[in-house]
Amino acid sequence: MSVLQTLGQQAKQASYELATASTRAKNKALMAIADGLVTHQTEILTANNKDIEAGRANGLTEALLDRLLLDESRLSAIAADVRSVAELADPVGEVIEGRLLENGLRLSRRRIPVGVMGVIYEARPNVTIDVAALALKTGNAAILRGGKETVHSNMVLTRVVQQALAAAELPMQAVQYIENPDRALVAELLRLDNYVDMIIPRGGAGLHKLCKEQSTIPVITGGIGICHLYADASADLEKVVDVVENAKVQRPSVCNALDTLLVHEAAAAELLPALAERLAQSGVELRACEQSLPLLAGSSANVHAAGAEDFDQEWLALILGIKVVADLEAALMHIREHSSEHSDGILTNDMANATAFVNGVTSAAVYVNASTRFTDGSQFGLGAEVAVSTQKLHARGPMGLVELTTYKWVIEGDYTVRS
Amino acid sequence: MSVLQTLGQQAKQASYELATASTRAKNKALMAIADGLVTHQTEILTANNKDIEAGRANGLTEALLDRLLLDESRLSAIAADVRSVAELADPVGEVIEGRLLENGLRLSRRRIPVGVMGVIYEARPNVTIDVAALALKTGNAAILRGGKETVHSNMVLTRVVQQALAAAELPMQAVQYIENPDRALVAELLRLDNYVDMIIPRGGAGLHKLCKEQSTIPVITGGIGICHLYADASADLEKVVDVVENAKVQRPSVCNALDTLLVHEAAAAELLPALAERLAQSGVELRACEQSLPLLAGSSANVHAAGAEDFDQEWLALILGIKVVADLEAALMHIREHSSEHSDGILTNDMANATAFVNGVTSAAVYVNASTRFTDGSQFGLGAEVAVSTQKLHARGPMGLVELTTYKWVIEGDYTVRS
Repeated sequence: MSVLQTLGQQAKQASYELATASTRAKNKALMAIADGLVTHQTEILTANNKDIEAGRANGLTEALLDRLLLDESRLSAIAADVRSVAELADPVGEVIEGRLLENGLRLSRRRIPVGVMGVIYEARPNVTIDVAALALKTGNAAILRGGKETVHSNMVLTRVVQQALAAAELPMQAVQYIENPDRALVAELLRLDNYVDMIIPRGGAGLHKLCKEQSTIPVITGGIGICHLYADASADLEKVVDVVENAKVQRPSVCNALDTLLVHEAAAAELLPALAERLAQSGVELRACEQSLPLLAGSSANVHAAGAEDFDQEWLALILGIKVVADLEAALMHIREHSSEHSDGILTNDMANATAFVNGVTSAAVYVNASTRFTDGSQFGLGAEVAVSTQKLHARGPMGLVELTTYKWVIEGDYTVRS
Repeated sequence: MSVLQTLGQQAKQASYELATASTRAKNKALMAIADGLVTHQTEILTANNKDIEAGRANGLTEALLDRLLLDESRLSAIAADVRSVAELADPVGEVIEGRLLENGLRLSRRRIPVGVMGVIYEARPNVTIDVAALALKTGNAAILRGGKETVHSNMVLTRVVQQALAAAELPMQAVQYIENPDRALVAELLRLDNYVDMIIPRGGAGLHKLCKEQSTIPVITGGIGICHLYADASADLEKVVDVVENAKVQRPSVCNALDTLLVHEAAAAELLPALAERLAQSGVELRACEQSLPLLAGSSANVHAAGAEDFDQEWLALILGIKVVADLEAALMHIREHSSEHSDGILTNDMANATAFVNGVTSAAVYVNASTRFTDGSQFGLGAEVAVSTQKLHARGPMGLVELTTYKWVIEGDYTVRS
């Protein structure tokens, strides 16, 4: 047995114990994690400092170093998040539906943990605690694989979690970490289908592609948002400027930020100059289609002609694609071709167009007259966000605790046979 | 663009139309399929006869030829099934949940079709109609790939479906069939993730393994049942004989038939001889563990010592593995190691053991005092059965119409921005 197979087997074994652990025991472990983050603060920050120094030596940018960094206040925030997870309702054990069949069998569908989650992530060490807490709350074991840039931090954080599990008399092997930086282990994890029930990648497009292509385990792909807003001819154009600004500027580095604005040709001449002026105030660069370029000429915004691939970009930056379309149907066609099915919306005062847009767009989150920035577990009231799924099976959009569970059918009879 | 990419693109395009088709239009198409099976009977049976003759020439067994065979009464039965699907409730459009957020946004989760289903199946031509009907009812487009043994039948059946779609003014390309027998096309279909949202294999373990390993599209694996019953010491042993006989003998060729009986050691001496006599009446061959062998000596059953792999078999035949275990915990350990997580049960009069078993087994269907033979969409009251999932994500056990749908979040505001 390889090291990873052993680890997988242990995680699977632990998952059976965790699946039947009481909410009280799981919450006790969560509170112990939160406490442990405080009591082991020096140890954690020392390990994190090693990661930061190694990162600096390896020439990581300041922005990336800041993502890796832990300090007293960030640790407190992470601990507070864990305490919040403890306060959420435990979805495990819910009877989703149940009935008595004609033959006397009692049939019910009962919510249970998925089993063992494999989580592959990049950069930020808070994900280690975040994922461990959500897995634990939902009775799942987890095998974690973070980026090599944070391995020292992650190893100490994993130890804090394991000590908390032990303190709550839960199996320590319920949360394990793959320390070895060899990339071959990621490939092996993705094929550990004997033991791992679900793979959640948290990172860039490359990581999601790798998982989709190599995993023999069901993967939740997502997190990549090529997001659109379509400004209809009927829209209140002043308000369109506000919404587009919010969707693009408020936090450009996240997946629900706007990437492309589609504009009905009847609204373009009025909307685009005003919009460009507003966005110029935040330094937004525009990548404009041929039809919109003349309308933007003379604006104080930084305007470029859109290139061939500019409408397939998740910008994650202060850049916005602008395209004029002939009508709603053309907007739908564009979105179907270019959207990553994360978050897409229409801005309109026309009921029929709003309905046609909502019906015609199959993205995980479809908006009418709102910023795409709302696609988020806490905004949607889910209490926690594990990931944002853009695939079709199991879960779509922000995933909360329930999406880390599955169900089994329980059938009770009186030595009942099928006739 | 390859032939398959074109086909995928057409299916995707059709899926958008189908997603917003009315229940009335979809049902009209379903009734037209049922009618078409009758009006095109001669054409269908002629094509099927070609398949049968080719199969006979290729030396297929009589059992397999019988699976391929269509005749007037089988066609009528298939048509009746399609009419039943038309009568089922349409799950598409259901608002699963909805609420008003504090910021004034209206949030709802709306049930929608998955999109494009790729279905890969073997042998029986009725699957072509079956899958087309279920896909159509749920607003999904489908790309079908049947076995080469039934290609003539399947092509005619697909034409019947496409004519019915046209008659209902729905896109004909919503149901398409890959005619070319080249296996490379299956591999290509499994990587057509730009257009296909879900792969459902219907066939043996080899097909499921192929899909799991090669697909970049989410796959519903399942259909393989290595099913267990555990006879507890407290069980009513005469009734255990009835249930085991039912689970093994009633229809041994299906996935929910019993494969291994686990017996508490305190019950073995009384249970096993009586059970062997009963099973011998149906010609069941026993593969018995070392501890059970002496208890079966002298029985009129055909008893063999169990080989190393006999407890990892889905028998699909009148063969039953027998294993004596020390206690419930040992039974759970055996099931966790050997079950395919399809259907497993306990036979007991002890409440605590029943509870521990149900909590401890993570299979899709967990039974207390009933035959495993009930794991079936129609027995569970789902109205239809698309497949039986044994994986953890999206769906478990018998999948009905709802399991061919997913959801999107719809968010409606008043030009609402995130603060």
